[in-house]
Amino acid sequence: MKFSAVVEISGLAGIADPEGQTIERSLPALGFDHVEHVRVGKLIRFEIEAADKPAALEQCDELCRKLLANPVIERYDVAVTP
Amino acid sequence: MKFSAVVEISGLAGIADPEGQTIERSLPALGFDHVEHVRVGKLIRFEIEAADKPAALEQCDELCRKLLANPVIERYDVAVTP
Repeated sequence: MKFSAVVEISGLAGIADPEGQTIERSLPALGFDHVEHVRVGKLIRFEIEAADKPAALEQCDELCRKLLANPVIERYDVAVTP
Repeated sequence: MKFSAVVEISGLAGIADPEGQTIERSLPALGFDHVEHVRVGKLIRFEIEAADKPAALEQCDELCRKLLANPVIERYDVAVTP
């Protein structure tokens, strides 16, 4: 069975986010005074073949731990839909 | 009124995605044979102050066009929640 997977990789709380800070510093010059707490992460989409939804989630979790995320500084959230 | 905004920036169809390709090439060596069509994009989260939801969406759209996305090679999707 084929599933569409979406993985969000984001920095752990307390880890610096230079890209987000750079965006935030650019905002006043562009006239955006009401935007704050900008955080930039990665969104990875792929297709995965698995027997059922729990199996797909388990494989995605393993994939995140082994390749996609660095758990020392990043957290990940996985969602799969058939 | 304060809204939480989520912006997904992804490459337009046909635009090369070297990060996704690199992940895809690494998969067989790690034992993931059932993963394909890997695409990597950015997910930007921030808070925005606006009068109502349409105004928040309008501001986010302008922010994407002016700063966050490059419409020549990228598309963006915006979602806001109160």
